[in-house]
Amino acid sequence: MIGQLNHIAIAVPNLEEAANVYRNILGAKVTDPVALPEHGVTTVFVELPNTKIELLEALGDDSPIAGFVERNPKGGMHHICLEVEDIMEARDKLIAEGAHFAGSDEPKNGAHNKPVLFMHPKDFCGTLIELEQV
Amino acid sequence: MIGQLNHIAIAVPNLEEAANVYRNILGAKVTDPVALPEHGVTTVFVELPNTKIELLEALGDDSPIAGFVERNPKGGMHHICLEVEDIMEARDKLIAEGAHFAGSDEPKNGAHNKPVLFMHPKDFCGTLIELEQV
Repeated sequence: MIGQLNHIAIAVPNLEEAANVYRNILGAKVTDPVALPEHGVTTVFVELPNTKIELLEALGDDSPIAGFVERNPKGGMHHICLEVEDIMEARDKLIAEGAHFAGSDEPKNGAHNKPVLFMHPKDFCGTLIELEQV
Repeated sequence: MIGQLNHIAIAVPNLEEAANVYRNILGAKVTDPVALPEHGVTTVFVELPNTKIELLEALGDDSPIAGFVERNPKGGMHHICLEVEDIMEARDKLIAEGAHFAGSDEPKNGAHNKPVLFMHPKDFCGTLIELEQV
């Protein structure tokens, strides 16, 4: 069912500092920040040859990553995003398996404007998994 | 400096259950477990089209992941492994930048029998980063 690793997301307290770590210390290609107020985050992508690291900073009062950054003041790995071909087929298979969703089991358009679902860490080895239809 | 994402490592309390989650629920290709007593872990790889997820279970009394699994009883994302062409060049650049190592700054042969270094999370957005020479 799952395909490529689309990205690993790392939530950080300061996006500019985090981008500098990846750009200047690790010598990676890093995109400019993009604010996504409807998702409560500002994002920067670290473009690796085979996948991406998404650096996330909380934006606004209701950011979904605010609590995580409070618990992890230096930042930390927040989720991984795995690609699926058909999100409704994946959703139905996961429901049949008894897996739990983090939030709704209705796909919503994610930060890349593609339908996504979040799977609850308790069923996936303590890892928050975003499924994205590509 | 950094190249491909070699793998994301997820430490888990029970490797068989974790392998089943990825094999049966997420429909991924999963390798057989390999015990690496000299590294204090047993590993399984989830083979994605563009990279790998390394599932790690503690092995023996001095496992380097035992404390992490105690703090994260359901498991959790433990580190990411980024490839570099020349680990000594990477090491010297990181020392010049004032970055801290998790453990020794002398590369050792890692789980894949290639020279590796671990960078301290405090300098890298709360993320433990393994650098592996490929």
